[in-house]
Amino acid sequence: MSAYRDEDPRLHGIKTKIRVVPHFPKSGREVLTFLGLAGIMFQDITTLLLDPKAFKDTIDLFVERYKGKNISVVAGIEARGFIFGPPIALAIGAKFVPLRKPKKLPGKVISQEYILEYGRDCLEMHVGAVEAGERAIVVDDLIATGGTLCAAMDLLERVGAEVVECACVIELPELKGRERLNGKPLYVLVEYLEV
Amino acid sequence: MSAYRDEDPRLHGIKTKIRVVPHFPKSGREVLTFLGLAGIMFQDITTLLLDPKAFKDTIDLFVERYKGKNISVVAGIEARGFIFGPPIALAIGAKFVPLRKPKKLPGKVISQEYILEYGRDCLEMHVGAVEAGERAIVVDDLIATGGTLCAAMDLLERVGAEVVECACVIELPELKGRERLNGKPLYVLVEYLEV
Repeated sequence: MSAYRDEDPRLHGIKTKIRVVPHFPKSGREVLTFLGLAGIMFQDITTLLLDPKAFKDTIDLFVERYKGKNISVVAGIEARGFIFGPPIALAIGAKFVPLRKPKKLPGKVISQEYILEYGRDCLEMHVGAVEAGERAIVVDDLIATGGTLCAAMDLLERVGAEVVECACVIELPELKGRERLNGKPLYVLVEYLEV
Repeated sequence: MSAYRDEDPRLHGIKTKIRVVPHFPKSGREVLTFLGLAGIMFQDITTLLLDPKAFKDTIDLFVERYKGKNISVVAGIEARGFIFGPPIALAIGAKFVPLRKPKKLPGKVISQEYILEYGRDCLEMHVGAVEAGERAIVVDDLIATGGTLCAAMDLLERVGAEVVECACVIELPELKGRERLNGKPLYVLVEYLEV
């Protein structure tokens, strides 16, 4: 079962190209069991990428939203945010800033740890990639509990950038990630109500 | 010192935006020491991504080369191939197929191990992503010794696709990766003769 954010006919095509893979990954299943959710239905965007029209529609919807909004930074979260972020950045004339797992970026970085349901993870951003006062969006394929997006926003705000919005293809509303974004707007194309 | 593949004026702009970071990563330094090469100058494409014009020129050069060539598959190698591959795929109307590290793809996969200077690594591709007879290009940011590109081509050829060419932003000719591609064409935008 799903709900569409609005009635743009492209959204249905996008939704039908996202494959649901049960029981992946195992760590994710443990998270959801921890959260009291029954199953796990992994939302696989790789099948969306196989359809040139649906992939283009996905990018176009983001571009139409952000074009002309004086956004100079598109920050993408490793690894699937690297797939959606660069085409948006190119189309709106913004820079693309990769936010990576530790020890992947070769230059001087700032790091932001974040808490997972158990354990920690970390995102890094190159020093000098973003300047104070720049307007940024954060792009990822999916928002689940929102921890990764929060870390991404923290990195950008620590260097004085303004995060205008987080943009994801998919939201899993039952995991309440939106509530963790501290009031920062979230734009998603499709929602999945059964995880 | 560098050499340009041809005289397109955009190439100089692209080259100047690639940052050289000495002594990264440490494992790379060990590889190059093993190969008898003196230093290590890591070619960092993240600075290229910060310049919207240079990044767009990079994508445009690939698109101009592959548009109208009946290519239906752009395969990108995790993680930096995910940055360059999707904009090319979108512009030429091809599907984008991510080739990932083990256990990252949720569906059924085929795997291809490859030998590094010491140790092994592995790439995976979703079964069903590419069909027999499709014409493909393989995209990554850089070719060093060529092992990863070979594994990527093996995956595509095992399912019956034709690899038309490998496309990289940067080549390190001294590492002789081109010679490992079994005669498959390689297209690069910039070469670095000092590694």
